[in-house]
Amino acid sequence: MAVRESFLEGAISELGTDEVYWIKDIVVAVTGENMEVMKSIIQKYQHKRISLVEAGVTRHRSIFSGLKALAEDQLNSKLSKPEVVIIHDAVRPFVEEDVLLKVVTAAKEHGAAGAIRPLVSTVISPSADGCLDHSLERARHRASEMPQAFLFDVIYEAYQQCTDYDLEFGTECLQLALKYCRTKAKLVEGSPDLWKVTYKRDLYAAESIIKEIISQEICVVMDSKEDNKHVGHLLEEVLKSELNHVKVTSEALCLAGRHLQQIILDQCYNFVCVNVMTSDFQETQKLLSMLEESNLSILYPVVVVSVHFLDFKLVPPSQKMENLMQIKEFSKKVKERNILLYGLLISYPQDEQKLQESLRQGAIIIASLVKERNSGLIGQLLIA
Amino acid sequence: MAVRESFLEGAISELGTDEVYWIKDIVVAVTGENMEVMKSIIQKYQHKRISLVEAGVTRHRSIFSGLKALAEDQLNSKLSKPEVVIIHDAVRPFVEEDVLLKVVTAAKEHGAAGAIRPLVSTVISPSADGCLDHSLERARHRASEMPQAFLFDVIYEAYQQCTDYDLEFGTECLQLALKYCRTKAKLVEGSPDLWKVTYKRDLYAAESIIKEIISQEICVVMDSKEDNKHVGHLLEEVLKSELNHVKVTSEALCLAGRHLQQIILDQCYNFVCVNVMTSDFQETQKLLSMLEESNLSILYPVVVVSVHFLDFKLVPPSQKMENLMQIKEFSKKVKERNILLYGLLISYPQDEQKLQESLRQGAIIIASLVKERNSGLIGQLLIA
Repeated sequence: MAVRESFLEGAISELGTDEVYWIKDIVVAVTGENMEVMKSIIQKYQHKRISLVEAGVTRHRSIFSGLKALAEDQLNSKLSKPEVVIIHDAVRPFVEEDVLLKVVTAAKEHGAAGAIRPLVSTVISPSADGCLDHSLERARHRASEMPQAFLFDVIYEAYQQCTDYDLEFGTECLQLALKYCRTKAKLVEGSPDLWKVTYKRDLYAAESIIKEIISQEICVVMDSKEDNKHVGHLLEEVLKSELNHVKVTSEALCLAGRHLQQIILDQCYNFVCVNVMTSDFQETQKLLSMLEESNLSILYPVVVVSVHFLDFKLVPPSQKMENLMQIKEFSKKVKERNILLYGLLISYPQDEQKLQESLRQGAIIIASLVKERNSGLIGQLLIA
Repeated sequence: MAVRESFLEGAISELGTDEVYWIKDIVVAVTGENMEVMKSIIQKYQHKRISLVEAGVTRHRSIFSGLKALAEDQLNSKLSKPEVVIIHDAVRPFVEEDVLLKVVTAAKEHGAAGAIRPLVSTVISPSADGCLDHSLERARHRASEMPQAFLFDVIYEAYQQCTDYDLEFGTECLQLALKYCRTKAKLVEGSPDLWKVTYKRDLYAAESIIKEIISQEICVVMDSKEDNKHVGHLLEEVLKSELNHVKVTSEALCLAGRHLQQIILDQCYNFVCVNVMTSDFQETQKLLSMLEESNLSILYPVVVVSVHFLDFKLVPPSQKMENLMQIKEFSKKVKERNILLYGLLISYPQDEQKLQESLRQGAIIIASLVKERNSGLIGQLLIA
């Protein structure tokens, strides 16, 4: 479960980065037992906007704690009362900026707003003896999801007015705003991404979604920009035609690495490093140094495939492999920085058609490595 | 998506196998455009109990078609009217026999029964202007899931009596039984497995769940049973200690393969074949032949890791690798039968502690291969 949870930690932590710049403060309600772990996560990801409050025993009590922290003028507090507050669940890590904007805009107009989704199953009401009492018409009901947004004064007033019974057994903030402030929330259609990571299968789904997102771009790094006949360009072409939905770019390390720096800043998580002009691992080692210096791999593992070419007819692969075995040691070192390094030896026959076939095999292997991010296979030298 | 869908196809097809022997007939409602695909699936998996009817344009019309096929005495039909009928969705492939038994038993007593689950989100009712009208108390409502079971006469009567509006817009069979036959369905608590594969994330979750299920057992096949010091037994021990939740068994091919046949029949999907006593691939090839003869890989891909040992200090791995390169050709051949073959060369130093470490590395690689079932890496020779 460690890998899965660390993937999810990355996704949740993205919310704390600078991405949604117009959110000023983020208050997270955390149970006492998890307070230290949470503090260390904040430190690890260097979150600047997050404050912590102690969670209550129920959902509503936790939210109330968060609101109090924002409402009260406390000495030494960097928090101040906002006009609008968004309430969100950490178990919905895939929320898009778009829906956050929508609920905030609607809350400014209506006082309250929340995301909804169509019901997946029919909802029924059981009688006391465990039999069907009645079923609800599915088309007339919706699932209430998060995020929700409120004028701060509306929702804070509602929480101050509401009863202990509400705080103990209630589940719906929109209902509190309706009941205690007569504020009718605007309902906003949300996307399927807002689902709640509840069961083990949801952790599986979350991991796969994250892997899919970070596999959308592959950068082919080669040791010469000028040469159009560089075999790296041939590999780039084959990658483009084999991987339909993946953006494949190429960049040369030798050009002082300016563009490459930008690609790393733009969060490309996959690099194919072609070593042709230079000795075995020179190019790959330069790239690894750049990646280690950047903070790229802090959220998710970065895949680096070190590619080498050889005419198997002229030199048996075993001979070249001897040199390339050192990749195992490199891979152990960079694994500590969350970089997954694999080797790939591609057959480079003189025959044009056979070359295309071995490049295609190479592309399939690269696609597999990028898709699975299998840490058990780092340091392996694969052969296409 | 091909891999994902084929995993799911396997899961759904399991329902058609002999597993739940007390279900006599299975009627599947299929749209006209998918009829041919469905027929080919039935042929591929050699399902005996499945009959097909043409689906209607709504859920209720499809179910009604299925019920008619069971009710009417048709010439040339192998179907006959049952006492109890189960209604289920193909998009819930992980249904357990246990809950099928529970709804059938309850239906015999109450006339109707259905599986329910707690609500994950609060359910609300919107007003005409897209604002919150009211929210439902989550604790008093349940999600109605499948399977459901009915006395055949009850549900058939209900479908015959119900209106066109019901057939067009209704979603709940239990509601029809209540409305038209005054049969109050018994509600049975279902497990989380009953969820509906609805969104792309659900396909991801389904694939991961299936992969987890078929990775629960690894069989170590070795070329001598008698020798307790056989390195295969050492590897078996390390696998046991590294893979906590996996059942690791061992078997010798040389004993006429009787026990191994049983392990294959019991649906073990992972084999580690240790080649020590015999020449390079002799043992692995024997195992592959057995697997090809069995029908094991028809539902899900079978993983075979061909393991070889070598003292890297005495012989450089490159020399041995030359011989082992032919695994690429073997792997292409058995891939057509849905068998994923990988090679693993484990360092066998004289030093006891170093040997343990290389066996541990080998176990990590085996665990990765079994977990991911990555078809892009078949035929690779991995090194531990």
